[in-house]
Amino acid sequence: MTRYAEAVPGIAYLGPEGTFTEAALRLIATNGLIPPTGPGGDPGSVMPIATDSTAAALAAVRSGEAEFACVPIENSIEGSVLPTLDSLAEGTPVQIYAELTLDVSFTIAVRPGTTDSDVQTVAAFPVAAAQVRRWLAEHLPKAELVPANSNAASAQDVAAGRADAAVSTALATQRYGLEALAAGVVDERNARTRFVLVGAPGPPPASTGTDRTSVVLRLENVPGALVAALTELSIRDIDLTRIESRPTRTELGTYIFFLDFVGHIDDSSVAEALRALHRRCADVRYLGSWPTGEVVGAAPPQMDEAVAWLDRLREGRA
Amino acid sequence: MTRYAEAVPGIAYLGPEGTFTEAALRLIATNGLIPPTGPGGDPGSVMPIATDSTAAALAAVRSGEAEFACVPIENSIEGSVLPTLDSLAEGTPVQIYAELTLDVSFTIAVRPGTTDSDVQTVAAFPVAAAQVRRWLAEHLPKAELVPANSNAASAQDVAAGRADAAVSTALATQRYGLEALAAGVVDERNARTRFVLVGAPGPPPASTGTDRTSVVLRLENVPGALVAALTELSIRDIDLTRIESRPTRTELGTYIFFLDFVGHIDDSSVAEALRALHRRCADVRYLGSWPTGEVVGAAPPQMDEAVAWLDRLREGRA
Amino acid sequence: MTRYAEAVPGIAYLGPEGTFTEAALRLIATNGLIPPTGPGGDPGSVMPIATDSTAAALAAVRSGEAEFACVPIENSIEGSVLPTLDSLAEGTPVQIYAELTLDVSFTIAVRPGTTDSDVQTVAAFPVAAAQVRRWLAEHLPKAELVPANSNAASAQDVAAGRADAAVSTALATQRYGLEALAAGVVDERNARTRFVLVGAPGPPPASTGTDRTSVVLRLENVPGALVAALTELSIRDIDLTRIESRPTRTELGTYIFFLDFVGHIDDSSVAEALRALHRRCADVRYLGSWPTGEVVGAAPPQMDEAVAWLDRLREGRA
Amino acid sequence: MTRYAEAVPGIAYLGPEGTFTEAALRLIATNGLIPPTGPGGDPGSVMPIATDSTAAALAAVRSGEAEFACVPIENSIEGSVLPTLDSLAEGTPVQIYAELTLDVSFTIAVRPGTTDSDVQTVAAFPVAAAQVRRWLAEHLPKAELVPANSNAASAQDVAAGRADAAVSTALATQRYGLEALAAGVVDERNARTRFVLVGAPGPPPASTGTDRTSVVLRLENVPGALVAALTELSIRDIDLTRIESRPTRTELGTYIFFLDFVGHIDDSSVAEALRALHRRCADVRYLGSWPTGEVVGAAPPQMDEAVAWLDRLREGRA
Repeated sequence: MTRYAEAVPGIAYLGPEGTFTEAALRLIATNGLIPPTGPGGDPGSVMPIATDSTAAALAAVRSGEAEFACVPIENSIEGSVLPTLDSLAEGTPVQIYAELTLDVSFTIAVRPGTTDSDVQTVAAFPVAAAQVRRWLAEHLPKAELVPANSNAASAQDVAAGRADAAVSTALATQRYGLEALAAGVVDERNARTRFVLVGAPGPPPASTGTDRTSVVLRLENVPGALVAALTELSIRDIDLTRIESRPTRTELGTYIFFLDFVGHIDDSSVAEALRALHRRCADVRYLGSWPTGEVVGAAPPQMDEAVAWLDRLREGRA
Repeated sequence: MTRYAEAVPGIAYLGPEGTFTEAALRLIATNGLIPPTGPGGDPGSVMPIATDSTAAALAAVRSGEAEFACVPIENSIEGSVLPTLDSLAEGTPVQIYAELTLDVSFTIAVRPGTTDSDVQTVAAFPVAAAQVRRWLAEHLPKAELVPANSNAASAQDVAAGRADAAVSTALATQRYGLEALAAGVVDERNARTRFVLVGAPGPPPASTGTDRTSVVLRLENVPGALVAALTELSIRDIDLTRIESRPTRTELGTYIFFLDFVGHIDDSSVAEALRALHRRCADVRYLGSWPTGEVVGAAPPQMDEAVAWLDRLREGRA
Repeated sequence: MTRYAEAVPGIAYLGPEGTFTEAALRLIATNGLIPPTGPGGDPGSVMPIATDSTAAALAAVRSGEAEFACVPIENSIEGSVLPTLDSLAEGTPVQIYAELTLDVSFTIAVRPGTTDSDVQTVAAFPVAAAQVRRWLAEHLPKAELVPANSNAASAQDVAAGRADAAVSTALATQRYGLEALAAGVVDERNARTRFVLVGAPGPPPASTGTDRTSVVLRLENVPGALVAALTELSIRDIDLTRIESRPTRTELGTYIFFLDFVGHIDDSSVAEALRALHRRCADVRYLGSWPTGEVVGAAPPQMDEAVAWLDRLREGRA
Repeated sequence: MTRYAEAVPGIAYLGPEGTFTEAALRLIATNGLIPPTGPGGDPGSVMPIATDSTAAALAAVRSGEAEFACVPIENSIEGSVLPTLDSLAEGTPVQIYAELTLDVSFTIAVRPGTTDSDVQTVAAFPVAAAQVRRWLAEHLPKAELVPANSNAASAQDVAAGRADAAVSTALATQRYGLEALAAGVVDERNARTRFVLVGAPGPPPASTGTDRTSVVLRLENVPGALVAALTELSIRDIDLTRIESRPTRTELGTYIFFLDFVGHIDDSSVAEALRALHRRCADVRYLGSWPTGEVVGAAPPQMDEAVAWLDRLREGRA
């Protein structure tokens, strides 16, 4: 991993070039979602840094080799991307600054001139293979699946002649000089992947009204600890949009919890809830507050009127 | 009701002179619990203003005839003093600034020279009569009870010859030139009455670490509304020390709720809870935060560490 | 107190004849709400037994002198009738079997021929006086109030010439040979009193679909104990229609709680809630389940479908 | 997949012979945890049926080809085994009857005579490779990893000469005529995997006092639905030992929840909780109640005393 320029932020991602993750980070940059890292920079300009794995991308942020990492965090079919969660929960704290959701569909990439009947082997990243199984059974029933290391590596395999077709991305198809035998291929409708932009801890992006906040909780091992923690959100009408448990890796039956909820650390009710969780839990790791760009769940209640009322009481002007 | 001086705060109370309420207000003044009402005043100096009833004492505050009223709010045997609660809950808002608890025991007052066998009639305020019933049955079994309008009026009745003995107070016995046939008379041990000092709304006394806050809630008429409101306290580990329901006087089955809890409006967790109640309830009437002078229940949790943690998060210094 | 007959149940009430309480017990009998106490009895036939007080009426049940007592428990203006609550909560257990609510309005009773201008004194039970104060100030502004021991005793006072008019009941006006100077007199609309029929513990009346259940809770003295107990009702969607706190009479700040809720002990969800309260509380005193005769609050959820589902699971027929 | 015998229950598992799953099912049989499937059978005797995948093993139960399937459900390092959860949650209902937890450690299997320096390639199932990465880096730093389809297939690869060493099991090492280059190999201590025995729905095994119950909840998509469901457990002091969310596969942000809790469907409090969840949730799929063989979490409260108390109330014998 080498940095070729300093004028623009380096963003580590699961490479090689042409993966969905690279497509996501380019859109994050285009959409202006990358916090400024220095004066005078072009906000949309980034230096993508390909890494071998999601864990390596986050390690690059922790070591300072990259300003940010773009990593997948959740897929509507497969669920959470566990290596991402595990890496966010442990080690040096990092923070999420932005998110982007991509519809997931694949391009079946071949060398120019290849037809269906020419395809005897199909290179695929196993996660991708699982999502196009029915399509392959119908359209290329005789082809043998061979594993690839990423959705871009499968295209490289085809370009190098190691396979006849690749389950790949539009970006990689173009980059490696291939053609699309089919596009928009996916077994289940609504397959979407959410990516997040992760950096070192810093002030969160300003509240936009449609934000998400994420934390990792480590609870005291007593009955009712989880429901007590969740009640800190529900009593304040804060909409929990996601909960994921992960083992603590110390013994079977102990977990940490990833919570996503609607709102921003600068919303009064979210700030109250965070303080309450901090007080109640063995540990709270704050993963950030960032804009979702669209309405997700119910917005946290506005407390302005109640705050003003309390201020009047304190001054004796009830 | 007449004010004789302006240099000291006037304090309305259930008279005539010599009631427990007068004794309580004198102790409140002696203990320095009366908020200053003007520059240069002697903090311990007050002008007691006798009224016919607890309601009249509070009305004097509302009309401005008195700066404060001293009224009983709760008795360990009889429970809440309902006219006080009803008067606090309705009409122009008023606020509690101090409290004082008295052990309740009675003096059996007679004209000098009177002996047990001379006593054929005993004057007593009905509330007092109920608390010495067993004592009278044992010590003055043949005497007839005659009603009096207050614990001081019973002594006046004896002084005027309308009764032979009075269930009264030490203060009234002395004031009306009577003698104690018996002192410290009460059927049930632990009989105590709590009095509060009520004034117009103003900034609450400063937090002391052992404070009480009181509110009146009017709830939406939906199942679960009460438990939801109480959960706003329990989730924050705020110790509810008293709950009293009173009918709304509009129809059978609708109530308002008086809540006392440990802590002061300037405690972060109490402030949060008040804001949450304001948001959740149809109406919250704040009755004040004031010192109890002794530990009552569990103190509200201190949020300083959690507040500092959140501030660090907002600045990106987690 | 004397029993004149054995063939019909004796019902103790606050006398003398002509009180609202007697009117209530006669309606309870007429409405067929008295549980059978023996074979062959006429269900509507009762033997009213006048007592000096509500406490005496309940004592008559505990001693066996009366099968039942009819006592007021709640008034829409004054709130709970505290002597009734205190007597239900302590001593030998008793149980409520029926209730009846009366609109409260008074008859101004005079000796035949008396006119407004003849009235110089008005006899009134203090509770009644408080409810007609405005009417008296408007219609009999010069008359002096003299206290009476009950709403029937005031009529007796007029019949005996000790007062010119009585704040009384229609029943007493008729019984003591008086006339109505005015009828339907009351200051506040919606003044209603609820009466209950109390007997020794026994099987509750059958569920009717519109029932009320009542308990007295003694809680462990720990923060959150009350909200935990109430949550046992709210989590089961059982509608709490009334909560009243009363001091334990041992020290200031400790209470017992009277709860009324919708439903019958034979409703699955109510039975669950009662068992849960029994497990959670220091003590639960069951005061009965009885028909209200009309819809009051939200009916408890029916669990039949859930019970059948669970039975199928246990048999492996999911 | 072929059944060779009918006298003993067929149990599908992830094959080939020699996997941890096969080891687990043999211990389940040895421990007498398999419910009787017919008269006169030897309870410890089973017919293992190797399948290609966990999903295939469960499909064999659903189709009737196997009486049971033994599948991994949770690993202390990796977390839930997602294909198992997804397969339990969808399709024809199945039920869990037993569980068994294995310490996970690997045998490095080689052909007889092979030494460390001979090893140039190591075959490993990817899940296993992740758990011995540090050991391999230290002991076989120059060897290249090649993927295998299971922990037994890796041994087959070595037996067939396709690799020099296998990350495999003791069982497979023996079965395929290999030798252990090292045993008890694992990077993280406390690596354990829990396996469950799954069959068609039927009466659960009898309660043992140390049981586990498992359900899948589909919640209404309203804020607070999860905390409301969890409160049905916490209010009854039922110890939630595991919660896992999985996407519904219909859209990002909607989940189903897998809950494990302590207790048996025949425990009164667990039965109550199940009925309450059934009433509250859009859907509850019961996955069974079965013995854990050891204490896991806090036992559910015994309700016998409360049930007896309620029965006395109903009979009027309070």
